[in-house]
Amino acid sequence: MPSRASTSYAPNEARVKALIKQTAAAGFVLKNVPEPGIRDDEVLIKVRRAGVCGTDVHIYEWDAWSQGRCKPPFVVGHEFAGEVVKVGKLVTDVHEGDRVTAEGHIVDGRCLLCRTGNSHVCPYTKIIGVDRDGCFAEFIAMPATNVWHLDDNVSFDVGGIHDPMGNAFHTALTAEIPGATVLITGCGPIGLFAVGICRAAGASRIIASDVNETRLALARRMGAHDVVHPGEADAAVNAATDRLGVDVVLEMSGIPAAIHQGFSLVRAGGRVQMLGIPSRALEIDLAKEVIFKGITIYGVVGRRMYDTWHQMTRFLRSGLFDPTPVITHRFPLEQADEAIRVIKSGEAGKVIFEIA
Amino acid sequence: MPSRASTSYAPNEARVKALIKQTAAAGFVLKNVPEPGIRDDEVLIKVRRAGVCGTDVHIYEWDAWSQGRCKPPFVVGHEFAGEVVKVGKLVTDVHEGDRVTAEGHIVDGRCLLCRTGNSHVCPYTKIIGVDRDGCFAEFIAMPATNVWHLDDNVSFDVGGIHDPMGNAFHTALTAEIPGATVLITGCGPIGLFAVGICRAAGASRIIASDVNETRLALARRMGAHDVVHPGEADAAVNAATDRLGVDVVLEMSGIPAAIHQGFSLVRAGGRVQMLGIPSRALEIDLAKEVIFKGITIYGVVGRRMYDTWHQMTRFLRSGLFDPTPVITHRFPLEQADEAIRVIKSGEAGKVIFEIA
Amino acid sequence: MPSRASTSYAPNEARVKALIKQTAAAGFVLKNVPEPGIRDDEVLIKVRRAGVCGTDVHIYEWDAWSQGRCKPPFVVGHEFAGEVVKVGKLVTDVHEGDRVTAEGHIVDGRCLLCRTGNSHVCPYTKIIGVDRDGCFAEFIAMPATNVWHLDDNVSFDVGGIHDPMGNAFHTALTAEIPGATVLITGCGPIGLFAVGICRAAGASRIIASDVNETRLALARRMGAHDVVHPGEADAAVNAATDRLGVDVVLEMSGIPAAIHQGFSLVRAGGRVQMLGIPSRALEIDLAKEVIFKGITIYGVVGRRMYDTWHQMTRFLRSGLFDPTPVITHRFPLEQADEAIRVIKSGEAGKVIFEIA
Amino acid sequence: MPSRASTSYAPNEARVKALIKQTAAAGFVLKNVPEPGIRDDEVLIKVRRAGVCGTDVHIYEWDAWSQGRCKPPFVVGHEFAGEVVKVGKLVTDVHEGDRVTAEGHIVDGRCLLCRTGNSHVCPYTKIIGVDRDGCFAEFIAMPATNVWHLDDNVSFDVGGIHDPMGNAFHTALTAEIPGATVLITGCGPIGLFAVGICRAAGASRIIASDVNETRLALARRMGAHDVVHPGEADAAVNAATDRLGVDVVLEMSGIPAAIHQGFSLVRAGGRVQMLGIPSRALEIDLAKEVIFKGITIYGVVGRRMYDTWHQMTRFLRSGLFDPTPVITHRFPLEQADEAIRVIKSGEAGKVIFEIA
Repeated sequence: MPSRASTSYAPNEARVKALIKQTAAAGFVLKNVPEPGIRDDEVLIKVRRAGVCGTDVHIYEWDAWSQGRCKPPFVVGHEFAGEVVKVGKLVTDVHEGDRVTAEGHIVDGRCLLCRTGNSHVCPYTKIIGVDRDGCFAEFIAMPATNVWHLDDNVSFDVGGIHDPMGNAFHTALTAEIPGATVLITGCGPIGLFAVGICRAAGASRIIASDVNETRLALARRMGAHDVVHPGEADAAVNAATDRLGVDVVLEMSGIPAAIHQGFSLVRAGGRVQMLGIPSRALEIDLAKEVIFKGITIYGVVGRRMYDTWHQMTRFLRSGLFDPTPVITHRFPLEQADEAIRVIKSGEAGKVIFEIA
Repeated sequence: MPSRASTSYAPNEARVKALIKQTAAAGFVLKNVPEPGIRDDEVLIKVRRAGVCGTDVHIYEWDAWSQGRCKPPFVVGHEFAGEVVKVGKLVTDVHEGDRVTAEGHIVDGRCLLCRTGNSHVCPYTKIIGVDRDGCFAEFIAMPATNVWHLDDNVSFDVGGIHDPMGNAFHTALTAEIPGATVLITGCGPIGLFAVGICRAAGASRIIASDVNETRLALARRMGAHDVVHPGEADAAVNAATDRLGVDVVLEMSGIPAAIHQGFSLVRAGGRVQMLGIPSRALEIDLAKEVIFKGITIYGVVGRRMYDTWHQMTRFLRSGLFDPTPVITHRFPLEQADEAIRVIKSGEAGKVIFEIA
Repeated sequence: MPSRASTSYAPNEARVKALIKQTAAAGFVLKNVPEPGIRDDEVLIKVRRAGVCGTDVHIYEWDAWSQGRCKPPFVVGHEFAGEVVKVGKLVTDVHEGDRVTAEGHIVDGRCLLCRTGNSHVCPYTKIIGVDRDGCFAEFIAMPATNVWHLDDNVSFDVGGIHDPMGNAFHTALTAEIPGATVLITGCGPIGLFAVGICRAAGASRIIASDVNETRLALARRMGAHDVVHPGEADAAVNAATDRLGVDVVLEMSGIPAAIHQGFSLVRAGGRVQMLGIPSRALEIDLAKEVIFKGITIYGVVGRRMYDTWHQMTRFLRSGLFDPTPVITHRFPLEQADEAIRVIKSGEAGKVIFEIA
Repeated sequence: MPSRASTSYAPNEARVKALIKQTAAAGFVLKNVPEPGIRDDEVLIKVRRAGVCGTDVHIYEWDAWSQGRCKPPFVVGHEFAGEVVKVGKLVTDVHEGDRVTAEGHIVDGRCLLCRTGNSHVCPYTKIIGVDRDGCFAEFIAMPATNVWHLDDNVSFDVGGIHDPMGNAFHTALTAEIPGATVLITGCGPIGLFAVGICRAAGASRIIASDVNETRLALARRMGAHDVVHPGEADAAVNAATDRLGVDVVLEMSGIPAAIHQGFSLVRAGGRVQMLGIPSRALEIDLAKEVIFKGITIYGVVGRRMYDTWHQMTRFLRSGLFDPTPVITHRFPLEQADEAIRVIKSGEAGKVIFEIA
């Protein structure tokens, strides 16, 4: 897929503002770069809102993962919404002026996994803002096939966070939620979205845990029946399930203690959806925690293409799910350092850039 | 299963009030009968509320179906809730004083279908009030294995209609409802319950159709986004789905025109759940209505044992689903003729007997 | 999708042999036509083998369906295999010399159904040989995205019948076959393939019915445990299933009597896969045949893209499934009339054209 | 469930031979014990064949697990087949002379998990030969509900190993096997059965790994396409799957290195079925081994009741699956020490007792 790995720059003189990972060191740089050109099957999108993600923090800090994966310089950012301003000549279903967001995983579309409904784990995936230029910029070029249209009544704010909302939809709705008892460990933005999704989809009891009071308050607002500190989760689950354990755990933290707690508190025969990324290996007693309990574990990658996107559009359309309370901070691109700082503080819900 | 086909009467002198299908002719008779005895694996339940069903109307009227199936005399009625007053000596998990309802399909539990999760279509099923004595009486004997406990906050009113609620849960939740667009054809009690279930489970758009204004008003109250007369359903579905058709049709009427409309308005690759019983064969253009559309059709029988019951308990517990608006009429057993008349009028939601 | 609806002809002088539906009347005409040109996302394939299908017979005879659907003149034929001889400049994963077959349903790839795993029922589908030029020709232009590579050890004979084999795989493997008892009504080529697939996938008992002895002999050869005339199917199923009925019916005939027999002989809670296309509407007693039995019916359209193709490759690769006994007749394009006649006789298995 | 936790002994004088875990120390003792009595819902079975399992070795050796779980004295053994010789008066579907085997997990049948298709993980499970008297004896009393009838052509040898065969069926057939590429890590008896099941169910490529040549030879005989030492598994999988990884891993060893290898060699989006019990916790890099790969892990407990048993009967009936090559050793009860020794040597396939 080399031809898709980088955006070709058109031979025009327009220059646009973009947040750049300039060198193999901490930090981002805001600078003017050439306006991205588009291929015949791509569109150019004027970015209006862009979500800031933990992944962006890793790249900002230039941690071990990003050192192994990323090749500066490149434009950062992978969550966004905006307006289409230019359309490649092979594109038939996206038009100038369309209000859109996009799947940031650019897959080959032709491999066995893509052809059998598993594009989300395509081995040839290139992620915008990680493997090619991203969306913390005034404009971004995207393959038309990755573009997703927004309903008229969906704001750019909400459009700009479809990527992490999609993580939450993927995590929640690949379990069976109607009627289920659900434990959500970790109330970062994705965990908070998951609370709202489970509530809209008829979970009978949602227990959300986190160490942070602000996030727990947001979890309550999104519809959690119980919001608890991790140390209280056992008691809350036991009370809610008559000591049986919950039907479904959505692990959103990556914290080892939360992962073990999830295995402990899911009922026999239940399901653990793992989205949170542990920063290191951990000791697991597979016999006791997994096998004798007869549970199913599912590793969540990205968003199913495009079932998850379709579900998002439907949930937003119905009005039963409203992610806006999760957005707690807004910054211009010029305040990127502050945006990163707020996320690292652990006090924020979702942080977004207002770009245009 | 001959030993389970009829209730044994204990050699006591107590006599209890019961609504009887006395002879092979129209009508019911209220009379005193011996209090039912119980086997060692049964319990005796004092009936508090009992729902009246279309099936009871058929038996009352002694139509062709009931003539072929039922053998008078027997106590009518198959939907109820009450209190346990006597417990067989082999019963370990039901106790005197328990507030309960029960699955009215008494299955053999040993056949291949029962042993592979398909008890709801067990070929040896005996239905209370149809094949053996039923619940329109002060007391009923039930196998302990069919008893389902009610939460403390679930009223006997609601307990008494778990059977038809269960039909609705079975119909709705064997489709994938979160985010789905749903057309419900027929807003009798089961259709109305289905509206509420789909709303609680996150359907993005619920279009309910019926010919009766009272029922449509109830459908609106239960959460339907659109309530329409059958002649308006095409327009409503096309508007709601951009002419694609709905993901799921719940056919609750048994009316040929509604069935054809369901096949027409489900989207390609969608799902039609059939609960309504047509009174006669109908012409179906399988090529156009089913095969070329690539749809799935599912015939709904009873309630899945006991997944459906478990879902009911969970939905009631969460508070997201409230069936009580559907109950429109209450009668004592003495007014059975009036109860039947109200149902036949088509104006009623759910009609229940208040027995004790 | 107008740009995909027809093949653009390149301004070269080469002319190639093709079987043409020339006018709105019965018959085909073999004539020289310009070699098809290709778009940038298409490839040109030299056709080596092409399967003749019942659909081709309909078009040949110019029946009511084809009169309503097709617009002469066009090249007929939709099942084929061959070698790639030219590749559009946007194509990256198909190369000159590749041995290939292709999915003949050209879908838009962008609609909601295509984006959620339901391309096989894409409402914008154009079928080669029906809606645009087909494969009964020396060369055919195909979108690269529809091309499927053949393993080295898969012959062009087998490659040329992937389309109907895929119908059979789709029909069989969307039911649960390992261990199942299966009734296959209709032993035309697709029914015969289904026998072999069910055998390879571990069906415990395969009962195949047809009116034709030649076909029954082929069904036996493909692995059916019982081969019966329709009048003997009830007895065979009852004997094999202890009167319970089969788990799965694959309806491959479109004959009303076979459809009713399928509904009668599937067990309660079982599954009926419908592929055969009835030529007219039929009376169905939904209450008795579908609803009270609690069965699931699935309408089969084409092949799932590309799960079905992947399964085919895997089954052929394992050697457990060999479709070659089904191929009973071979003709050059010059003998098209004879090929059609043989199919209409009902005596043939699969009939193929040897083109180059 | 206290009343089911132990077998009541009838007040008769008959004494029967049984292999006893006599004290809290290593070893078994063969002695005469009273013939077991039966409750009204139980049957008495004359044991003909009984399989010896790794669990029996643990109990023999009185390892940490058995010290924590078992309460001597009790009759050991949980896999068997035999003839019914006495029937409790409430039992209707088992008769004297019936040739039977039985599910050794005695569940309560009434809890939420039992009532929703998850009896195999019922929290109230009592296992014969572990929690109550087992089958290494001339007679065993079993609840009628746990009895499974054998087809006439199924030998007592095969009947006696339905328990571990059922583990293998549960493990294999809760994945999608037709067409799949499968890696089976560990070729003990259950792994060997799994090879044969996957072959019968149409796996396209079965790669079986073990350290032991005898077992690898049996794996080849059961139908594995590739039999490899663990060090060769990577190369074998890469060659068979074009470096993509296998669709399904069946982890049958409990060996940490094999578990990591399974995670490494399953394809992205694939499925790992875990049956082998690791003897201690192990370090798992969930991010790399599970989450980023988007895989599903399923912990296998016992046999699904009774879907798994039904599948076994069907596979045996079809003749496509024959477990008999796996049986390598036979002993009388008197040679229990030798039977245990052979299993510990790692050279055996399945070891059985011939009792009568």
